Amino acid sequence: MEAFSDGVFAIAITLLVLDLHVPEVGDGSLAHALVRQWPADASYAVSFLTIGIIWINHHGLMRHIERCDRVLLSLNIFLLMMIAIVPYPTALISHYARTPNATAAALYYGAVMVTMALIFNALWHYAIRAGLLVQGADPRDVSGITRSYLIGPLLYGTATLLAFASSDASLVMYAAIAIFYLASATLWGRRAPA
Amino acid sequence: MEAFSDGVFAIAITLLVLDLHVPEVGDGSLAHALVRQWPADASYAVSFLTIGIIWINHHGLMRHIERCDRVLLSLNIFLLMMIAIVPYPTALISHYARTPNATAAALYYGAVMVTMALIFNALWHYAIRAGLLVQGADPRDVSGITRSYLIGPLLYGTATLLAFASSDASLVMYAAIAIFYLASATLWGRRAPA
Amino acid sequence: MEAFSDGVFAIAITLLVLDLHVPEVGDGSLAHALVRQWPADASYAVSFLTIGIIWINHHGLMRHIERCDRVLLSLNIFLLMMIAIVPYPTALISHYARTPNATAAALYYGAVMVTMALIFNALWHYAIRAGLLVQGADPRDVSGITRSYLIGPLLYGTATLLAFASSDASLVMYAAIAIFYLASATLWGRRAPA
Amino acid sequence: MEAFSDGVFAIAITLLVLDLHVPEVGDGSLAHALVRQWPADASYAVSFLTIGIIWINHHGLMRHIERCDRVLLSLNIFLLMMIAIVPYPTALISHYARTPNATAAALYYGAVMVTMALIFNALWHYAIRAGLLVQGADPRDVSGITRSYLIGPLLYGTATLLAFASSDASLVMYAAIAIFYLASATLWGRRAPA
Repeated sequence: MEAFSDGVFAIAITLLVLDLHVPEVGDGSLAHALVRQWPADASYAVSFLTIGIIWINHHGLMRHIERCDRVLLSLNIFLLMMIAIVPYPTALISHYARTPNATAAALYYGAVMVTMALIFNALWHYAIRAGLLVQGADPRDVSGITRSYLIGPLLYGTATLLAFASSDASLVMYAAIAIFYLASATLWGRRAPA
Repeated sequence: MEAFSDGVFAIAITLLVLDLHVPEVGDGSLAHALVRQWPADASYAVSFLTIGIIWINHHGLMRHIERCDRVLLSLNIFLLMMIAIVPYPTALISHYARTPNATAAALYYGAVMVTMALIFNALWHYAIRAGLLVQGADPRDVSGITRSYLIGPLLYGTATLLAFASSDASLVMYAAIAIFYLASATLWGRRAPA
Repeated sequence: MEAFSDGVFAIAITLLVLDLHVPEVGDGSLAHALVRQWPADASYAVSFLTIGIIWINHHGLMRHIERCDRVLLSLNIFLLMMIAIVPYPTALISHYARTPNATAAALYYGAVMVTMALIFNALWHYAIRAGLLVQGADPRDVSGITRSYLIGPLLYGTATLLAFASSDASLVMYAAIAIFYLASATLWGRRAPA
Repeated sequence: MEAFSDGVFAIAITLLVLDLHVPEVGDGSLAHALVRQWPADASYAVSFLTIGIIWINHHGLMRHIERCDRVLLSLNIFLLMMIAIVPYPTALISHYARTPNATAAALYYGAVMVTMALIFNALWHYAIRAGLLVQGADPRDVSGITRSYLIGPLLYGTATLLAFASSDASLVMYAAIAIFYLASATLWGRRAPA
């Protein structure tokens, strides 16, 4: 299960590059065209970090799961479906950035992220209830993970609703969530050996 | 063999996202355009679940196979050829949904699925006859798998023939087969520890 | 090294599907259009089988190699470069089939195949001379593999030169080589346990 | 971590083939068109070798790292972001080769390479300082690797600055760096057993 998941994560994260298109400028300035398409670069970076962080979290989750049944496999398939679709809303955002349709693109992106965060929670709760966790897992670790996962749908839900007010604010919040998780993951990593 | 197969499954399932195209609406409504292209989303979801379920079954099958010879490798290559081509009939269906050509697209999709189900059966029967199964496998398990695999070509064959009557009915049946296998896999998984 | 190679094989073989394009027929017959593009389907199948067989052979080769140095890694990179490029000449052949340019496309395809077969031989000979083989490998097995690899450049060279006379004959021979290797691999596999 | 990284390397290196486009020549000469697009082939080869060599180095680095914390995972995500984007500047170079925009394309390519080389150094230095290396690693080996990694940003920085004088010279230097690393890796590999 982990090899297959790692594969889907690795492919989805690498397919994001296909959303970056060679600008057709003829004899015009390629440098200016590349600067002008910064929204595409920014959404590439945000989606790359987002998938990367979800992968780190998925990896951490898998270390706590000892056994695997078909319900878990099925939930994992639904999680991967959300991961694998990320390049599409990313393309929507980079294509419609700074147009009136930016709100619709940001909402689509947010809907994918909220669904993904909900499935992540479902997967974790199922693993706990079905007794699939590693024997002797520290209950404080388990409830710590439970709490940190619960924040996900709330953060992404807020960022999605923000799109109705301002699609730019929504995109900045998607980036902030990625950086927040990366920083907290990093701090958590530093604390771990202590 | 399993690492390579997992790779092909993971890539084919992730390439499905390339069938989702950013709609060109200019200043028109992106939201309406996204809603109008629901057949593309639906065929993405059906093909994703279908490949996902075949992967779960392939995974289950591999656990029963202990050794691997070159005939099995060759049959596996043919199986992977059918898996890897799935994004193409999926694109045909999403492109020609609700047009007179939907029947041809549904037939092509069904032909791939029937062929794949037949190769799956051939692979399993070869593994049994060539003595490649795990020593001491429970004969009831083996014959249970044999029966569940036999249903595949029948179900997909019926869905394919349905396309002559109604391509929509055919597509609904492809979705139903995926959900049926997912549900039975899930139920089977729950029963397993009992 | 084997995980990375398996990845490149799996991706290259799966990317072949991107050479199959949804035909734009409007209200015309999709069924006829799909039948007319059989050269694309045929070159998909031949390239898929070819990469699949090279993967089986690569897999067999790796079982005989115990250690791995950086020269071997470098030769492997060059081999993978040829594997990864296969979707491109496949696209050339399917695009220019049955046109005057079919010869050029068949020659390009053949040049890739001959180069790949030569690198395969170089990799094997280097592994033997550098003492990287598994200790106690049967010398008859080793020289048997050496002989079977030597046929590769000759077969692909002949198919390439055939393109000057008839590009169709050349394509048929590429298919025949794939089927020949598949059949001999299969027969060899059957004989193995004896 | 290594499986996921190997996946991203393998996919990025294989996606490079998508930068090679079937030339549309109608009844004109495909052979001439293929010869004329040698810059696309050359940039394919340079990027393939570059990613291949970075993979070999990444592989070598991982053998010296025993434990893995979340900081290291995060740095690795940033490294993979640079690897995964390589097909994009490669497409820029092959599209704008021999036009006035070749300088901008070469600068973009160089900026990616310099950033990647800097992250590679950061990852290695973090692993040393955080005590993640294999116990009992030979200090001379470690400082040898440190020195060889330090050359990377300098070489790529020089090649990038060269683009202001001549984009062709810059491209030749990118190729030379790849060949230099491949040759030194190969020589180093030969020396290793001595």
